[in-house]
Amino acid sequence: MTEQNDFGEGFPPKSIAFVGVSRTNHFQHPGYTGSKLIRILQEGGFEGRLYPVNPKATEIDGLKAYPTVSAIPETVDLVNITVPAPAVPGVLEDCARARPRNVQICTSGFGETGGAEGKALDAQILEIASRTGLRIIGPNCMGFHVPSARIQMFENVPMEPGPVAFLSQSGGHARVFILHASHKGVGLSKVISYGNALLTDEADLVEYLATDPDTRVVCMYLEGVKKGRRLMELVQAVSPTKPVVIWKGGLSAPGARAAASHTASLAGERQIWDAFFKQTGAIPVGSIEEMVDVALLLLHLKPLPQGNRVTVLGGGGGDTVAAGDACAEAGLEVPPLSPQTRSELLSYVYLVNQGIGNPLDLPIVFYDMNNLRRTLRTLADDPLLDAIMIRMGSEFFVMDQLFPSRSQYAEAIRDVAEHEMGRKPVMVAITDETSVEPAEKHARAFREAGVPALGSLRRVCHALSRVSAYQRYLTSIGAEVR
Amino acid sequence: MTEQNDFGEGFPPKSIAFVGVSRTNHFQHPGYTGSKLIRILQEGGFEGRLYPVNPKATEIDGLKAYPTVSAIPETVDLVNITVPAPAVPGVLEDCARARPRNVQICTSGFGETGGAEGKALDAQILEIASRTGLRIIGPNCMGFHVPSARIQMFENVPMEPGPVAFLSQSGGHARVFILHASHKGVGLSKVISYGNALLTDEADLVEYLATDPDTRVVCMYLEGVKKGRRLMELVQAVSPTKPVVIWKGGLSAPGARAAASHTASLAGERQIWDAFFKQTGAIPVGSIEEMVDVALLLLHLKPLPQGNRVTVLGGGGGDTVAAGDACAEAGLEVPPLSPQTRSELLSYVYLVNQGIGNPLDLPIVFYDMNNLRRTLRTLADDPLLDAIMIRMGSEFFVMDQLFPSRSQYAEAIRDVAEHEMGRKPVMVAITDETSVEPAEKHARAFREAGVPALGSLRRVCHALSRVSAYQRYLTSIGAEVR
Repeated sequence: MTEQNDFGEGFPPKSIAFVGVSRTNHFQHPGYTGSKLIRILQEGGFEGRLYPVNPKATEIDGLKAYPTVSAIPETVDLVNITVPAPAVPGVLEDCARARPRNVQICTSGFGETGGAEGKALDAQILEIASRTGLRIIGPNCMGFHVPSARIQMFENVPMEPGPVAFLSQSGGHARVFILHASHKGVGLSKVISYGNALLTDEADLVEYLATDPDTRVVCMYLEGVKKGRRLMELVQAVSPTKPVVIWKGGLSAPGARAAASHTASLAGERQIWDAFFKQTGAIPVGSIEEMVDVALLLLHLKPLPQGNRVTVLGGGGGDTVAAGDACAEAGLEVPPLSPQTRSELLSYVYLVNQGIGNPLDLPIVFYDMNNLRRTLRTLADDPLLDAIMIRMGSEFFVMDQLFPSRSQYAEAIRDVAEHEMGRKPVMVAITDETSVEPAEKHARAFREAGVPALGSLRRVCHALSRVSAYQRYLTSIGAEVR
Repeated sequence: MTEQNDFGEGFPPKSIAFVGVSRTNHFQHPGYTGSKLIRILQEGGFEGRLYPVNPKATEIDGLKAYPTVSAIPETVDLVNITVPAPAVPGVLEDCARARPRNVQICTSGFGETGGAEGKALDAQILEIASRTGLRIIGPNCMGFHVPSARIQMFENVPMEPGPVAFLSQSGGHARVFILHASHKGVGLSKVISYGNALLTDEADLVEYLATDPDTRVVCMYLEGVKKGRRLMELVQAVSPTKPVVIWKGGLSAPGARAAASHTASLAGERQIWDAFFKQTGAIPVGSIEEMVDVALLLLHLKPLPQGNRVTVLGGGGGDTVAAGDACAEAGLEVPPLSPQTRSELLSYVYLVNQGIGNPLDLPIVFYDMNNLRRTLRTLADDPLLDAIMIRMGSEFFVMDQLFPSRSQYAEAIRDVAEHEMGRKPVMVAITDETSVEPAEKHARAFREAGVPALGSLRRVCHALSRVSAYQRYLTSIGAEVR
């Protein structure tokens, strides 16, 4: 059997053939057809070459059509297959003659059906790949989203290049990841939906991303893993330089049953995955939203926190109680502040009805930028703290006569963080009132002004806890401090 | 000592005196002053009588002012006090002469400071109340929001009457609750911020709500409880007819420390609270959002689920795995469907690549309303299921040429639920893509069309799990089936 894991050759593709393009396929169906993909790529500004393959046509949608892949006058980088499952082996035999650099089988109806027919088709594909050396992604996958190459697999999704990659067994999750990342201003290097992973699997793709110069953070959605040992070794090797964030789906019994039906995966086994995360330093998350939050802090926190002892600076009694509970729920420690910190704060903060606790209930410091700066410096000097969260309600930014403006806050926090806080990260949580939208909008404005921020204190706590555990992993293996 | 717990007399108030109204108090401060409260009530359309009290004025903001409470020519329903803490005992002595039905002390600076001065003031208030029989709310509280009486304590909050009450030690949480409830279309009977609960406490207020004809669901935010046994007995008595939903703040160590500083409360003691919930049937939640979700299902689910065995009907492989995991995380069971259900579904559903699992990955039924209705009926007949969730992406409602319209879905689901599903509740979860807003908007439209719906599958799972546990509690005590 030839080596299938040198995925990077011919990727991102500059030339793509499409097998499964009908001559007049404008049937409006949400499914995935070659015709639709060609249109998506054309509309997205892909500048490579597109080859529709159809033995009954000479031209499709203005492109010259070819009867077979092997009839195309160049060796293409990628063949995209959307024909029905039983026709796939025949297409692969044709590909074997043309020797494209990669083959992507979108079609479903293989091992994931659980039926004998699907399994027989799997065996046929494996035999052809073994005999011919074809590199195959899928089946039952959606493919590639590479903004820098204007390659996409979905309609109506943004293409913003950046340092975060996402590997996903689920095409649906790939789409949601792209949308979430764009919404939070996180640019993407490569998103790859690889489906059943019959041949090319997550390990091969992690290996590729390990040396991809455009990728700094690797995110993954996994259902099942066939070569667990190999994936573990690869993630262990990659994570000290490129953090690996993993959403493992199907850890529950009903989730595992669904994963078996979705991508023929054996999911489950929570203890095995606990060990996996512990040994590799991979960062576990439980949703796309949390994954993007963690990626965002990994990119923007400077430095990562050296431990999990935190403070939350905010105002309001009930919200301060909730902040303490949220930190504890996320596994963060909220130690009492040092006596020096408390006496320093008391020297200039007028307290109406609160002692100096942690979380800090100090609304007064938000009225005066000098007090806020001074408070941040004081907290930065506290040896008992590893990170500082600032909690602000979105109503702050609509009460202009009372509070400084959002940009004044952002400027002050960024300045103090850059010049006066040593190696202690600070981040902002905008708290929700009735709706997440305004909080997200303000958080985004803070990020654009250079201040790490998310639109929920709970989410900041969870993401901070994750990245702090990652930093402790790095320390434990003696990796360079980030 | 006189009995202080017959809170309902003179409530909601028709006449209110304000002590703490300066003659020219237009200082723009977010704090709580009598002048501000008068303006809020006037602008909100309160039709009762307002009496500013100030010995140095004869008129304030167009209202006749009185030198003392006892100089007011009627016995007022409520005296609102916002003078500084040391001046409060003197005002209470004046109140004792006037004998108002209730006194509300907004001022902070009492037991919650932890200082000797605050504790001495507490003792003075207790002594005056004991000697004079004054009924006192607070100190350190915000007061009342009663939409049906046009009474409010905050600016810029909606006043929508309805069947849900909220008791809160935190004024901030009271405000957020009002906003969240309005955003979700949940109308309110009474919201009461009662602060330190030095005299009138949560138990007194629960006792009042037990017989309040406008209240069908009682929500509470608690930090500490002084008379735990009494509260337990009251909640136990109320919960079979009016469900009681409780967010207990400060269950973590840092949260408990903050609660001590916020409202002088002894929080913590998770085991005690676990026992409390188990014995009373009160429904535990962890945030305002979850509280409103649960209230919403309590009001709209008909009937409540008789157990926690559920199915989720939706489409998309990765989302189906996530749905299984979300159910498990919330403590719901997702049993394999009965053989009859599976063969019935297979008789008309064309499966491309999925078996009939649970959660159900059946996108096909969303294209044809007859299939959807038939599927719901089939699931309703499955004896292994207690409740049915329908998961739809908000993108369904922007792809009009592919899918039925939102109102067609809502109508079909409501009709089947009302006439053909026996006693099995059905609810809709609109799933988020990049933003919660569109999901919430669609969920609201479903609710307005008579279909219980929330803008997140995770939130539906958690709220459903809570109300199903409540129903099981009712069954266990032999209460009437709801």
